[in-house]
Amino acid sequence: MTVNRTIRVELGRRSYPILIGDGLLDGGVDLAAHITGGDCLVVSNETVAPLYLDAVRRCLPGKDLHVAVLPDGEEHKTLASIAAVIDALVAARANRDTTVIALGGGVVGDIAGFAAACYMRGVAFIQVPTTLLAQVDSSVGGKTGVNHPGGKNLIGAFHQPRLVLIDTGTLSTLPDRELSAGLAEVIKHAAIADRDYLDWLERNVPALLARDAAALAHAIARSCEIKAAVVSADETEKGQRALLNFGHTFGHAIENSLGYGEWLHGEAVAAGMVMAAELSGIAPAEQARLRRLLEAARLPVEPPPVGSAKLRKAMQLDKKAAGRRLRFVLLDELGSARLESDVDTGLLDRILERADA
Amino acid sequence: MTVNRTIRVELGRRSYPILIGDGLLDGGVDLAAHITGGDCLVVSNETVAPLYLDAVRRCLPGKDLHVAVLPDGEEHKTLASIAAVIDALVAARANRDTTVIALGGGVVGDIAGFAAACYMRGVAFIQVPTTLLAQVDSSVGGKTGVNHPGGKNLIGAFHQPRLVLIDTGTLSTLPDRELSAGLAEVIKHAAIADRDYLDWLERNVPALLARDAAALAHAIARSCEIKAAVVSADETEKGQRALLNFGHTFGHAIENSLGYGEWLHGEAVAAGMVMAAELSGIAPAEQARLRRLLEAARLPVEPPPVGSAKLRKAMQLDKKAAGRRLRFVLLDELGSARLESDVDTGLLDRILERADA
Repeated sequence: MTVNRTIRVELGRRSYPILIGDGLLDGGVDLAAHITGGDCLVVSNETVAPLYLDAVRRCLPGKDLHVAVLPDGEEHKTLASIAAVIDALVAARANRDTTVIALGGGVVGDIAGFAAACYMRGVAFIQVPTTLLAQVDSSVGGKTGVNHPGGKNLIGAFHQPRLVLIDTGTLSTLPDRELSAGLAEVIKHAAIADRDYLDWLERNVPALLARDAAALAHAIARSCEIKAAVVSADETEKGQRALLNFGHTFGHAIENSLGYGEWLHGEAVAAGMVMAAELSGIAPAEQARLRRLLEAARLPVEPPPVGSAKLRKAMQLDKKAAGRRLRFVLLDELGSARLESDVDTGLLDRILERADA
Repeated sequence: MTVNRTIRVELGRRSYPILIGDGLLDGGVDLAAHITGGDCLVVSNETVAPLYLDAVRRCLPGKDLHVAVLPDGEEHKTLASIAAVIDALVAARANRDTTVIALGGGVVGDIAGFAAACYMRGVAFIQVPTTLLAQVDSSVGGKTGVNHPGGKNLIGAFHQPRLVLIDTGTLSTLPDRELSAGLAEVIKHAAIADRDYLDWLERNVPALLARDAAALAHAIARSCEIKAAVVSADETEKGQRALLNFGHTFGHAIENSLGYGEWLHGEAVAAGMVMAAELSGIAPAEQARLRRLLEAARLPVEPPPVGSAKLRKAMQLDKKAAGRRLRFVLLDELGSARLESDVDTGLLDRILERADA
């Protein structure tokens, strides 16, 4: 099986390719060629390691391969897991030429990437994302880190991978709900940056839900292109990278209000995008179009009934964390977004009150 | 009191000044002007905070100032201390505009800097070093991090400060032994990069030991200039920055063999420089000159009697960590250094055997 698509994230000396294809882990790619040293540490979790660790091992003939298997779940995205991965690196006598390989979803990628950023002040890192969300979003762009009881992703680093290897075949084992959650970020990319892509998604959501390999490869590639372009222009989120947070101000408030783990991140973002589209004041027909697309992808389009007071409080926390005024990502129309601090507070109140139901 | 000297570390967008003067913390500098946000976290330790925290506080009128006081000592340079500083940042509701200020020696600077590197993927950081070692070496150049039982500084980041503020007056409270240990790194700078500076040091060691303010300011400034130039040329130690490790291959082996804490880092480096000068094969008169200068600074010039086998084993560990051949920093002559992997192993053996005494 050959590589279907290669996308480059342009970051000067730190540029890297994203390889996308079906069956890449079954011999479709020369992974060892991307590894300069003689040894690797594969970081995975209890769910993913039994499924794909052997395949990764077969992709790395001649390399000295060590493994760290973490428990599965966002609740393990902590500094303690970083310490565990560092311990594994030390036990493996890893050095400056060692490569850390993340095999799993966003949590595994965030932990492995941050450990790679810290070990000896930074060693090479490769992402092998196995969930749609990680393939289209978290594995690209170098954001790594862990949670603190005081907030999500409070401890971390920007550490770009050397390679992102996306085998779309790994999506065959992904639960339906997680597939839909990944589609939320796919739809987000279209909503903020590419109206033609939105048209395409409207026609192809059934194929994507049916895990049609060609449709998935196209969506992953187009989403990675959009994310790569944004990251190349603004690696450390001084400005336009924040556009990728469309739906996330409301989404984080939903996750925070419900308690993390109730709704998947993508589900909260889906409802958040509907709310943000309404706050944008785009034409009702446009709002309805976004809502229908999300519904077709089997995603929620209304906030959970946690009460508007709770949502508002969670948003204030976000504001404090930013150290400045709360900024929303608003749509000019479907396919074009902007950052906006000055929003219609009356309209914002009415939108939040939908959580009072 | 005005600023005596300003040295700039040139790193493009991340360039920063080093301000050096006597009494800078007593109103000699407008520290608040270097802080963009409204709040700071001062990280210090139990020894230094009682001496200088109030002065720092007076330098920051109108800023919301939080404090984290760590226990004193290298044994606290751990991931647990990073977690403690992050907890303090969260408790202070620190945000992206918060500035972390390190007030203390190298351990405090390394911990505070790494915490600042990780919090929200990087917040601003200011160094206020209060030991000579930190003023001439560890506070400049952006190396931050903590130890792991498997090795020193195994976990860390490159995170440049926004400002290094050196009040030479803080050296009045520094124990004699630590002053001498700092002079080891000063002499190192001269030995690898500036023969005229070495001449000056030979004439001025008595004044430095007597804590003459003008002599200290000159030595700190010249050492910072040398270090700044090396760091500007090679921020992440791909090449010539490694020249700053003159004496450190032997020095680390001494520290590791004795157990950390027996000899101060600067003391081990002093003996290590004598050994490295001998391995360099420079003229005996040059070797004797370096040795006399170190002795004048009240530093050891022979390895402790730990046995050559132990030193050799410790050096092998260093080699493994580097993932490649062990590299020595050798002198062409006093004032000029180079990296060298290919050394006279017979001579190396004889040098190590001095630890068999």
